[in-house]
Amino acid sequence: MSAYSQLTSIFKRVSYYQHALTLLHWDQEVKMPACGAGERGKAIAELSALVHQNLCDPQLETLLADALQEPLRSEESASLREIKRVWQDNNLMPENLVREQAIAHSRCQQAWNTLRHENDWNGFCESFEPVVELAREQAKIRQQALDTATPYDAMLSLYSQGDSAELVDRVFTQLKSELPGMIAAICDKQRGLQKPQISGEFTLEQQRELSHKVMAFLGFDFNAGRLDVSAHPFSTGNPGDQRITTRYNTEEFIEALYATVHETGHSRYEAGLPVEWRGLPVGQARNMGVHESQSLFYEKHIGNSPAFCDFVVSHANQLFKLGTPLSGGDLRRAVTWVEPGYIRVIADELTYPLHVILRFEIEKGLINGEMDVADIPSAWNEKMQCYLGLSTENNYKNGCMQDVHWPSGAFGYFPSYTLGAVNAAQVRVALEAQLGSINSIVESGDITPIATWLNDNIWQHACFLESQELIEKATGKPTSADSLLSHFKVQYGL
Amino acid sequence: MSAYSQLTSIFKRVSYYQHALTLLHWDQEVKMPACGAGERGKAIAELSALVHQNLCDPQLETLLADALQEPLRSEESASLREIKRVWQDNNLMPENLVREQAIAHSRCQQAWNTLRHENDWNGFCESFEPVVELAREQAKIRQQALDTATPYDAMLSLYSQGDSAELVDRVFTQLKSELPGMIAAICDKQRGLQKPQISGEFTLEQQRELSHKVMAFLGFDFNAGRLDVSAHPFSTGNPGDQRITTRYNTEEFIEALYATVHETGHSRYEAGLPVEWRGLPVGQARNMGVHESQSLFYEKHIGNSPAFCDFVVSHANQLFKLGTPLSGGDLRRAVTWVEPGYIRVIADELTYPLHVILRFEIEKGLINGEMDVADIPSAWNEKMQCYLGLSTENNYKNGCMQDVHWPSGAFGYFPSYTLGAVNAAQVRVALEAQLGSINSIVESGDITPIATWLNDNIWQHACFLESQELIEKATGKPTSADSLLSHFKVQYGL
Repeated sequence: MSAYSQLTSIFKRVSYYQHALTLLHWDQEVKMPACGAGERGKAIAELSALVHQNLCDPQLETLLADALQEPLRSEESASLREIKRVWQDNNLMPENLVREQAIAHSRCQQAWNTLRHENDWNGFCESFEPVVELAREQAKIRQQALDTATPYDAMLSLYSQGDSAELVDRVFTQLKSELPGMIAAICDKQRGLQKPQISGEFTLEQQRELSHKVMAFLGFDFNAGRLDVSAHPFSTGNPGDQRITTRYNTEEFIEALYATVHETGHSRYEAGLPVEWRGLPVGQARNMGVHESQSLFYEKHIGNSPAFCDFVVSHANQLFKLGTPLSGGDLRRAVTWVEPGYIRVIADELTYPLHVILRFEIEKGLINGEMDVADIPSAWNEKMQCYLGLSTENNYKNGCMQDVHWPSGAFGYFPSYTLGAVNAAQVRVALEAQLGSINSIVESGDITPIATWLNDNIWQHACFLESQELIEKATGKPTSADSLLSHFKVQYGL
Repeated sequence: MSAYSQLTSIFKRVSYYQHALTLLHWDQEVKMPACGAGERGKAIAELSALVHQNLCDPQLETLLADALQEPLRSEESASLREIKRVWQDNNLMPENLVREQAIAHSRCQQAWNTLRHENDWNGFCESFEPVVELAREQAKIRQQALDTATPYDAMLSLYSQGDSAELVDRVFTQLKSELPGMIAAICDKQRGLQKPQISGEFTLEQQRELSHKVMAFLGFDFNAGRLDVSAHPFSTGNPGDQRITTRYNTEEFIEALYATVHETGHSRYEAGLPVEWRGLPVGQARNMGVHESQSLFYEKHIGNSPAFCDFVVSHANQLFKLGTPLSGGDLRRAVTWVEPGYIRVIADELTYPLHVILRFEIEKGLINGEMDVADIPSAWNEKMQCYLGLSTENNYKNGCMQDVHWPSGAFGYFPSYTLGAVNAAQVRVALEAQLGSINSIVESGDITPIATWLNDNIWQHACFLESQELIEKATGKPTSADSLLSHFKVQYGL
């Protein structure tokens, strides 16, 4: 058997351990009773160690070297490149650093769970300082092994492989220069208007029914997936079995529904990955920036279209007891309402990138050693004032302590949210140039052409192309902020 | 580290792989969408291979030999004995036989799925013959390694470790000599009466609510377990996380409810196993005969008590729209109605043992080479006529093709159902001698004393004692049919 074949069979075997891990995690969030947590945690740790151990088997290094000498088809070469990437990610870190990080992250997350609510920044710093120290160490080791421009680039490559900090910088600089003005203009236009309040009684069963209808419309296959409820919406799954979650609030239905639409976008991407490359690194989704482009495409470009809003309200008016029936316009105004706020996860699409940019700037400074933990609150406050006109002085819980990412060591993750938004808008332009307006397709009642286009141009390519090659091939140019900014101008009549 | 400690840490690690397997199986039956089946099957195969491979690691043999020389506390000696048992079960079979069996069982089960409905015995034999051949091979290998009296004993030890075929024979001979007469007498008494028809409309939500109430009454902890729906009721789980299933029929509620009671019994046993021995073979349930004694104790001895029937109808009358309210007596007559029939899984408690005995006699003959596959239909028909007065001539689907056990190679499993019934009745006598009647305890509204007794006398002992030691310690004598037969005499007024 060729070295390449041996590698693929090892990686496929490991993918089944990961299949089990995926289910253990899903079940933990969705179905597991509380008292199962202790043993589940140990089972997850044991399986994770098994995966790591398999990927750190010394024979892999020899096999990789041998495979590089073998004649391979171009798809196999891409496959080998991605195998090497995963192998590197697993092998470059010394065991003891991995262990120290696991302990530090778990400790800091636990502290964060309580101290965030108590607004206790100083208490939090105690367990957060070591997390940052260890992340800097990790970043340096990764930088050396992967030969990236900066330590921060090496962290970014954990989530947005192929997208450099320099690219992110360029995109974010453009957004930062234009968004505050746009937000001010939109707020001006909104002055005197009220954000539509959609109130009524929305039972879980009714909302679930609406979610199912909407997911079916979006092409979600319930023979190959599920919708459940969890504390925070997420998307996961294994081949042939995509699982998304949402959370319902009986006082309004829009948040749960649009979370469902968002997660459906993620799951459509996963379901569209090429069947014949299952279980291999090259058969996976490209990176988080591309993944988020698909979820945001469904949420913002399909979900916010007038025709989709009409479709939703036609069902909502039948399902729910509403004082006065809802119009598509009401729903659309609600989902495109712009208003600066403190919290990223509930931000609208114009202020959201600014939340991300301030985090990017701070975490880049932290990881590259140009900023310290003690500098975070003032930097946060300054940037919030500058980008969104809001002060977070002494307001840590709604400021720099609001996200779980940093306490869990996920530095380099935030940019993917906005890379996703930017890519989604760029995909929209390319797709509409070929298919006509999304709104007309949604209006036709059958969005198959959209899914087919995304499948042909994004999903089927998995990791065969590098991320910027993928985006350029699909949209004609590398990731840039232009399309998103133009989209905002049209959408908000600027 | 001592050899014994090394062994325990290996077995604990493997127990976490089994934790994952348990969840993969549960999810497959309960939550997984259809298209997930292909990858799930492969993941289960890969994890099972991993477990097997870990238990066949050559170092285990040395560690076992060394551990036997070490000074151990008596609990540790029992633990080592059970470790050795699991090790033997995994190591005595040659790899190629295991693989051949996996293929033959899967092929035969698939054939059975369709051919059973078509009543096609000859077609079925084609794939069933190899299953029997391979089981005979397996039995001989096991007999040699475990030094059992007969090949069949070696199969029995897969499910009822510690209970010999000779013991089963003795118990079954007594049952066989008394049950047919009892059944005739009861049918005589029932003549002119009708089995109570409990009809109405029973929605899934109402039945689920009733199940939850009943499970809570029986001590099921919903913080440490779940109730779900599956095609066939079963019980599974991991420590701190017991999961049972039932299936609802909207035309009647008794079957689903009593399946729930039965599975709750299994889950109470599992939940009562000693926490400090989790993950080790000695910390597991003793064997299937003891397991079934707990489920049947809950179903037949608590569940069929007049006080429990009163408790159930008090809730059922509130929950369901019933033409005329139900009485406890109606329910009790329904769950203790006796009527010979073809199908084991829906048989009453008097005819059930005879279904098991005929299977035991046939499978013993098959495995010990005293009977061939071609002899099964006539043997089945003769025994059904003799024990239950029913002919199964040419009626394979309701005769020898009704169960999945043989097509899946599970020869030696059937006796545990009736060993369970016999043990349950024996446990009842011992428990009532100390606590007074079960009926009075149920009537008091708090069955904690029953659970405490079972915990102290059965659950907490896990595998520290051999099965007959356990039964004798709990009930004062080894497994015998006496208590069950006496119980029937009282219960049915004979």
